[in-house]
Amino acid sequence: MQIIPPALERLMLALSELPGIGKKTAMRLALNILRRPPGMALELSSALAQLHGAIQLCSCCFTFSENDPCAICADPRRDGSLVCVVEQPGDLMAIEKTGIYHGHYHILHGVLSPIDGIGPKEIKVSELMARIKSGTIKEILIATSSTVPGEATASYLIDRIQGTKVQVTRLACGIPMGMDIKYADRHTLARAIESRNPVR
Amino acid sequence: MQIIPPALERLMLALSELPGIGKKTAMRLALNILRRPPGMALELSSALAQLHGAIQLCSCCFTFSENDPCAICADPRRDGSLVCVVEQPGDLMAIEKTGIYHGHYHILHGVLSPIDGIGPKEIKVSELMARIKSGTIKEILIATSSTVPGEATASYLIDRIQGTKVQVTRLACGIPMGMDIKYADRHTLARAIESRNPVR
Repeated sequence: MQIIPPALERLMLALSELPGIGKKTAMRLALNILRRPPGMALELSSALAQLHGAIQLCSCCFTFSENDPCAICADPRRDGSLVCVVEQPGDLMAIEKTGIYHGHYHILHGVLSPIDGIGPKEIKVSELMARIKSGTIKEILIATSSTVPGEATASYLIDRIQGTKVQVTRLACGIPMGMDIKYADRHTLARAIESRNPVR
Repeated sequence: MQIIPPALERLMLALSELPGIGKKTAMRLALNILRRPPGMALELSSALAQLHGAIQLCSCCFTFSENDPCAICADPRRDGSLVCVVEQPGDLMAIEKTGIYHGHYHILHGVLSPIDGIGPKEIKVSELMARIKSGTIKEILIATSSTVPGEATASYLIDRIQGTKVQVTRLACGIPMGMDIKYADRHTLARAIESRNPVR
């Protein structure tokens, strides 16, 4: 017997496609949406329907944007000689929230992962090299994640860029702000000791 | 500066309306949807758009259904003299999954919660009393949650029904299957001791 109405099951299936949402959570979400007035479902539906049409990749830095070039690339107050290389647009948003960075960005849209068949051609590496060749960039700040594929991607980029005149820098690794030393993992602590700074 | 494109922000806002989805999760989901081909977003959008139009409440048991009466109320093989009272349609689905129950249902669509202004008139209590008055029901199995409002609702229903000729039963409370006694909480254990069964 069909206990779950097909229209509800269809929504549950579509929701369970989202990352971190299993069958039980999808059912809970779908039932919650159904219990509420239709307005909420229709707003979410409409936001989803217009999403891919409204957003494109900036042809310069490859972040998600409604305009091309994006607001950051088009802003004359930002420093175009400094480019921060990140894995995904979400990383750009996290760095923008700090309010401390005033350069441009370059979104790779992935990391090198040979086991998944992702090589340099699958991410925006040649586009980065073309930006470097154009001559306005003085510093590349590599801000890939501190994970195995993130570090491998950083090493690969450093190798590629070191033949050029551009200065390559990386985010500092060390103890997170507010963390008790005794709870820091030993790899982070080792990195913090190696990268210790002289007190000025 | 508008770092997050408005179309993406709109989706994030709509997603963060869902229960258990905060701003960070909404951003992660929205970026994931954007990174994937549009088909997934459009399917979810369409599933949401048709949801409220396709599904109504069964006029007999008040579960979500595309037909009225629902498949359970319309099934002549099910026992209409036994009615299980649950809080929400999700509870019905959980009970149906056991495969052990062959009676009808009655969905209250809530529990009594005076602090939230939810009294008997806000949930489907009068509809249940009307079904009882119609005379075909012999047993009401109360399956509200084992929470404070669930228990209060059960007590209220028992009071209301006890004036009629209908037998009222409740789900057994005790040790969950597979649970180690030493990890059971003391209220559950106390209930299991009080409700101990003679070995046949």
